Amino acid sequence: MSIPHTKRICQIIKLKPEAVDAYRTIHAAVWPGVLAALERAHIVDYSINYYPPLQLLIATMKYTGVDYEADMKLVAEDPETQKWWAVTDGMQESFVEGAQGSGTDMPWWTEVEEVFRFEGKSQ
Amino acid sequence: MSIPHTKRICQIIKLKPEAVDAYRTIHAAVWPGVLAALERAHIVDYSINYYPPLQLLIATMKYTGVDYEADMKLVAEDPETQKWWAVTDGMQESFVEGAQGSGTDMPWWTEVEEVFRFEGKSQ
Repeated sequence: MSIPHTKRICQIIKLKPEAVDAYRTIHAAVWPGVLAALERAHIVDYSINYYPPLQLLIATMKYTGVDYEADMKLVAEDPETQKWWAVTDGMQESFVEGAQGSGTDMPWWTEVEEVFRFEGKSQ
Repeated sequence: MSIPHTKRICQIIKLKPEAVDAYRTIHAAVWPGVLAALERAHIVDYSINYYPPLQLLIATMKYTGVDYEADMKLVAEDPETQKWWAVTDGMQESFVEGAQGSGTDMPWWTEVEEVFRFEGKSQ
């Protein structure tokens, strides 16, 4: 049986060229408190991919809970996550004009629309 | 139990602005033979996302088989898939300099490096 899920997310943001090394280093050992907050928020199968020529970070994840907005609010209220974002936001440039950072009302990452899905035998 | 997998793939390519409508239409009802070839090749959880300002298509999928190269070769030899690519390649512009199309030795889509992974409770 595959895991239940209610939502898939694909998001993009720019990585500042001068922050690439620091970004790789910090993501090689993400703080346990940050991962724990994601787990409590029912986020699974989360990956970030990086394409240097476009400074492009691509994040994909699945949400397995029942109230995405409420769970994301809990993540945004987590003190360890707030400290994490204070570090990682500074490494990034948002595609969203006027965005101030993660966890605010205006999104920092840009959600990218899904135009095709094929589950295959995972379902 | 979650599905086994040996490989995750994230790929990007450009969608020609004049082909957006046709791309959406054809992907709303992908030919059954194309999906069957993917299934035979142990591809699951395959999605394509589209971000218009960068003409960006992002494809993510998982491979659950044991010989990725061999399975991709079978896909490339599938006549229905070759017809599909003849249509969809014309809608796209590769990031790979000199690339001629899908299924050739030079990749058409660009594989994007993974810099972070968090499985969460899916594993």
